[in-house]
Amino acid sequence: MKTLTEKYIEVRERSVLLCENLQIEDYTPQSAVFTSPPKWHIAHVTWFFEEMILKKHVPNYKVFNADFGFLFNSYYNSIGERIERHHRGLLTRPKIESVYEFRAFVDQAMIDLLESDHHDDVKALTILGINHEQQHQELLLTDIKYTLSKNPLYPKLFDSNLVRHYNSNNDWMAVEAGVYNIGHSSDAFSFDNELGVHRVFLESFEISKGLVTCGEYLEFINDGGYEKPEYWLDDAWYWIKDNGIKQPLYWKNIENNWFQYTLSGLEPIDENSILTHISFYEAAVFAQWKGLRLPTEFEWEVASKDLDWGTHWEWTNSAYLPYPKFKTAEGAVGEYNGKFMINQMVLRGASSVTAPGHSRYTYRNFFHPQYQWQFSGIRLAK
Amino acid sequence: MKTLTEKYIEVRERSVLLCENLQIEDYTPQSAVFTSPPKWHIAHVTWFFEEMILKKHVPNYKVFNADFGFLFNSYYNSIGERIERHHRGLLTRPKIESVYEFRAFVDQAMIDLLESDHHDDVKALTILGINHEQQHQELLLTDIKYTLSKNPLYPKLFDSNLVRHYNSNNDWMAVEAGVYNIGHSSDAFSFDNELGVHRVFLESFEISKGLVTCGEYLEFINDGGYEKPEYWLDDAWYWIKDNGIKQPLYWKNIENNWFQYTLSGLEPIDENSILTHISFYEAAVFAQWKGLRLPTEFEWEVASKDLDWGTHWEWTNSAYLPYPKFKTAEGAVGEYNGKFMINQMVLRGASSVTAPGHSRYTYRNFFHPQYQWQFSGIRLAK
Amino acid sequence: MKTLTEKYIEVRERSVLLCENLQIEDYTPQSAVFTSPPKWHIAHVTWFFEEMILKKHVPNYKVFNADFGFLFNSYYNSIGERIERHHRGLLTRPKIESVYEFRAFVDQAMIDLLESDHHDDVKALTILGINHEQQHQELLLTDIKYTLSKNPLYPKLFDSNLVRHYNSNNDWMAVEAGVYNIGHSSDAFSFDNELGVHRVFLESFEISKGLVTCGEYLEFINDGGYEKPEYWLDDAWYWIKDNGIKQPLYWKNIENNWFQYTLSGLEPIDENSILTHISFYEAAVFAQWKGLRLPTEFEWEVASKDLDWGTHWEWTNSAYLPYPKFKTAEGAVGEYNGKFMINQMVLRGASSVTAPGHSRYTYRNFFHPQYQWQFSGIRLAK
Amino acid sequence: MKTLTEKYIEVRERSVLLCENLQIEDYTPQSAVFTSPPKWHIAHVTWFFEEMILKKHVPNYKVFNADFGFLFNSYYNSIGERIERHHRGLLTRPKIESVYEFRAFVDQAMIDLLESDHHDDVKALTILGINHEQQHQELLLTDIKYTLSKNPLYPKLFDSNLVRHYNSNNDWMAVEAGVYNIGHSSDAFSFDNELGVHRVFLESFEISKGLVTCGEYLEFINDGGYEKPEYWLDDAWYWIKDNGIKQPLYWKNIENNWFQYTLSGLEPIDENSILTHISFYEAAVFAQWKGLRLPTEFEWEVASKDLDWGTHWEWTNSAYLPYPKFKTAEGAVGEYNGKFMINQMVLRGASSVTAPGHSRYTYRNFFHPQYQWQFSGIRLAK
Repeated sequence: MKTLTEKYIEVRERSVLLCENLQIEDYTPQSAVFTSPPKWHIAHVTWFFEEMILKKHVPNYKVFNADFGFLFNSYYNSIGERIERHHRGLLTRPKIESVYEFRAFVDQAMIDLLESDHHDDVKALTILGINHEQQHQELLLTDIKYTLSKNPLYPKLFDSNLVRHYNSNNDWMAVEAGVYNIGHSSDAFSFDNELGVHRVFLESFEISKGLVTCGEYLEFINDGGYEKPEYWLDDAWYWIKDNGIKQPLYWKNIENNWFQYTLSGLEPIDENSILTHISFYEAAVFAQWKGLRLPTEFEWEVASKDLDWGTHWEWTNSAYLPYPKFKTAEGAVGEYNGKFMINQMVLRGASSVTAPGHSRYTYRNFFHPQYQWQFSGIRLAK
Repeated sequence: MKTLTEKYIEVRERSVLLCENLQIEDYTPQSAVFTSPPKWHIAHVTWFFEEMILKKHVPNYKVFNADFGFLFNSYYNSIGERIERHHRGLLTRPKIESVYEFRAFVDQAMIDLLESDHHDDVKALTILGINHEQQHQELLLTDIKYTLSKNPLYPKLFDSNLVRHYNSNNDWMAVEAGVYNIGHSSDAFSFDNELGVHRVFLESFEISKGLVTCGEYLEFINDGGYEKPEYWLDDAWYWIKDNGIKQPLYWKNIENNWFQYTLSGLEPIDENSILTHISFYEAAVFAQWKGLRLPTEFEWEVASKDLDWGTHWEWTNSAYLPYPKFKTAEGAVGEYNGKFMINQMVLRGASSVTAPGHSRYTYRNFFHPQYQWQFSGIRLAK
Repeated sequence: MKTLTEKYIEVRERSVLLCENLQIEDYTPQSAVFTSPPKWHIAHVTWFFEEMILKKHVPNYKVFNADFGFLFNSYYNSIGERIERHHRGLLTRPKIESVYEFRAFVDQAMIDLLESDHHDDVKALTILGINHEQQHQELLLTDIKYTLSKNPLYPKLFDSNLVRHYNSNNDWMAVEAGVYNIGHSSDAFSFDNELGVHRVFLESFEISKGLVTCGEYLEFINDGGYEKPEYWLDDAWYWIKDNGIKQPLYWKNIENNWFQYTLSGLEPIDENSILTHISFYEAAVFAQWKGLRLPTEFEWEVASKDLDWGTHWEWTNSAYLPYPKFKTAEGAVGEYNGKFMINQMVLRGASSVTAPGHSRYTYRNFFHPQYQWQFSGIRLAK
Repeated sequence: MKTLTEKYIEVRERSVLLCENLQIEDYTPQSAVFTSPPKWHIAHVTWFFEEMILKKHVPNYKVFNADFGFLFNSYYNSIGERIERHHRGLLTRPKIESVYEFRAFVDQAMIDLLESDHHDDVKALTILGINHEQQHQELLLTDIKYTLSKNPLYPKLFDSNLVRHYNSNNDWMAVEAGVYNIGHSSDAFSFDNELGVHRVFLESFEISKGLVTCGEYLEFINDGGYEKPEYWLDDAWYWIKDNGIKQPLYWKNIENNWFQYTLSGLEPIDENSILTHISFYEAAVFAQWKGLRLPTEFEWEVASKDLDWGTHWEWTNSAYLPYPKFKTAEGAVGEYNGKFMINQMVLRGASSVTAPGHSRYTYRNFFHPQYQWQFSGIRLAK
């Protein structure tokens, strides 16, 4: 079994590896207010270790560069930070080379600390930092895909397209009514939003073992689904009309053939492959159009042990709200999850760009219902 | 016990009575996209009876005016209707006198029908229409208050201010953990969103018997609550900053004294009275600041039989989502509630402007979390 | 010849006459930020006499209602006023009846003053007030047309449509190069923006005696003019694309026939009639498409004595800027014209809704280039 | 005297020299819709030579990369281009290295052509391309300054701040009334918007030999100038209030001392130095506050031979409109200037970042009146 130091090194190296094919120019621009540049991700996860661990636990620690604390802090909702959220893409300085020097500097200090200090707090925060970095690894990939997709040259970043997956089983699975335990219980790491095992009563339900395919979704499109208000949630209808949305993100209709932009370039849609990059709004309308529904996050959690999963984040029909025993941690770490518990829907599972071993049955991902840019998919229930 | 005809007449007359002090000029303008003019409310509830009942159940029924069907239909999400939603305040024609003629015309036809036809569908739809009209009676008052509040003259509509209420009891009440039944079960009328009794497991909790007062909320303001991001939900913080919100709607600080606009004009804040006109965002931040929380709608429903309530809509920490057995009705009536089940939070109870007898323990009201213009209040839980 | 008192009464009565067919509901709503409600126009022109004349020249004058000064002042750019500009349509109180009482009150005081006081300043300000009221008479008609046009019932206000006019002559007229005098010189009234006769050198030019007709403009539309960026000014192209503009304001294509909304209802387009309700952007692109150009305001003024004019405001290719000898008056009156001398284009002539005798050869009207809602037309030059 | 090839090489080399201190990261991001990234400037001026000259005049010319034509074309107002205008900062690919290869490729082809072909059209278009590149050299500097200014680190690009200039003379100069010739007349290059010498009559005027200093402008600020609506043009007042503008661009008040961001970092304001980075709105209000005015572009042109100038673009009170003999060129080159002749004000002179020898007495620069990011200044007249 790996030591914490080994685990730290492994995750840190994976971030660098993911950037292998990036050109220096790719690191800086920001393509939307909800995305961040690779430079920012790479620096911010490093800042987390410096700010939350090194500054507190290494005597006389000297920060690499005092400016970086301000530039790469995503946490405090101060006016300054707020301006920055939209302006992350204008940070041409420091250059990426300096950010990698910052990484190396912090890595050395962290490894020294982990080898010498066995304080529980350091361990716990390091594990949190590792999981935090894994989350940003996934965001880095979703965000750079979004940025590259705006380039009319359809750039190719990887050989693999990361989105071609198939169902192995399309059966329905039945679950009995009853009281179930929900939430994270083992000693292993989890985020604060999954903590506090509690009981939930579920009425009986059935859930599909497969995810919706591109071909099934095309039937919805071809039936005029994007033009039929009767199937859409009210907010969803206004959203797609205001934003001219007529298909999943990255889909393009070229001379009556459907293509999608992938991280390996533009590719024809394979109708048998699993649909991805759809919003909750689209997931919900598709379920409505089929006469079915999305599962709740509790139904999903109870059923998940018997499902294949791990290729797409699956939208549930649960709003992201605190569990009964949810507690906000003290200090900056307390802003981690709790403050986002409004206007967002829970996604369960994991996707093809989630870091290996990062997710689990109790993991609660969450995004606003209009966002399409995650590697999201649809599982149906009834 | 009242006959259905008597009930119909009573509710219809109440709408007219509520408009008693309106001047002709008050009927037309629209003060925000989320409000509607009195003329529109008065006509729309009438249109409901004509469209849903008379056209289907009165042989050879001739509509009062074919144009009114288009002008006062709030239902179908067509492009046409959408333009209108923002333009309801420009309908200077027809004049209000014609709208009242429309009312009288439809009332006569409805009374004739109710006296002669005992078809179940007519009864059910009439009861739905009555409840629909009661909802619009409340909206008419909340909306006209919002419109009049934009007038620097602080106009007075009623002698009574409608917002001065006091708690009779501030104790905490404890509820045991267990499985509880939730939802509407009797034969009496309910909306589709409360139907389908189902079981919910609740962990033990405590709930306050009193609502938060103006004085308690002033402590939050005076503590700089509107300037401390650490207490606010993330979306809430951006909302108040983008919109310059620094106090409950209708509160005004004049030379260091707090006043509020009421339907009987500008009045000093009474610190012992119950706080109202706050958004979910403000309710949630106040609870966070107190180290407490809002109840869920299920906790509220279970506790409600032992609470005073009925003066304010109480924000819960539950998102407005379908119950497990929720079914969308066929046709236009099906758009009644289901399509709003996203991005809104549930309020329970009733307010001082709710029609008498309209609400009940299982009633689910819902609004987007940023809206302040309802007669809303805060009940705390822990 | 009329006395000043007679002239005052005549103009004041005309305002009332123009409102003859308005219903009470028509007086209040505001249909766009650039329009004002009839109630506001009617009250504001009255406020002008009270504020600028009566309060200064009538000893111990008591204002009709102190609130009206705040509500109906368009002048000072204070924060308060600014909020109001967008909210003029929410002033349901005072009711229109009170506004007419205000009118009668001020009229009586003005007539008493005019009969008793022969101070030059009173005379000059009264003449300014009369001309100011005439300007608002025209705006009242353009604004109420815009409001009524938003009503799907196409309401009819007058028997006459006010927009059917024909050219009597389509010849070109030649003007020699030379130094010309520009600006108002007689003792008669003029606005400050036309004052200061000065010399302008004009190269030789030709100007059309007729205005562009609906039929000529249809050729432009049918040639795909609204889809050809090469003819449009850059700002104009973005404006029409952002706002979905594809024809003159009030034109509607119903089953391949062109109609226009007029103050006497919806009417078929008469191709021989003169085009109206077009923006400067459309006037300029039409000229470009024809290989011609718009005249400058100086060319227009020099040529005008030999032209028919008076049915449409004619866009010129001159920006609205101060004449060399322009002086801003002291005090509030100084805000009359000077502060608008940016981003607007000059229109010359008069329209069918201009008050009789109000305009003259040297009159400078001005609007932002995107506005279509005036009774504007196109005269070409080369 | 230099040959055209020498001149071509000199200007092309200057573009590269200006980028000497740029880091690769600086080339891509776009900081506002009105700015462009260095990469785009560098590529676009190169594209101009390829598109306008090489493709037409070099037999069998093979473009460097067909995609570049689409990516770096600023000309045609197609839908495609329009999307790009806001997205220029997302073009992380091609990398800057490839853009410099594109430059070298085009330079070789241009030099070959210039040495072998003496066709007049090639010469004229090359001279146009050289002047076009000089314009973009200036924009590159104004735009990169704007981008770097968004970085809280206040990056330094050059040793010289480029904005510290002083007046040598503050006298007033008088000009007699009369007819003057305006416009470009020599055989030397000029843009189409200065062509067509024509006569203009000017009334007598006086013009200042010095430009307004930072200290003079500080008096305006300290007098509360940004809070006094009576001095501002109406559009200007709304602009500064909507955008929270309270000082010239790049000025920062830190603990009651005024600093400005310059291309050599943050520096204290020198009150004797000439003011820069102000909008037309601010230039106009300052003149109004002083009881003076801005000169027209014609006054400026007539007086310019006796003025020092060349350190700042000087806002005039003339709208950017066509001269009487203005003709739009055929084809794409025709979009060069004419389509911008609306809503912009003329600036005369040149600035410290204008390419040497690029401007002249008749040169007409133009920007929308709200823009502050040019190296603009104020000269007063009366």
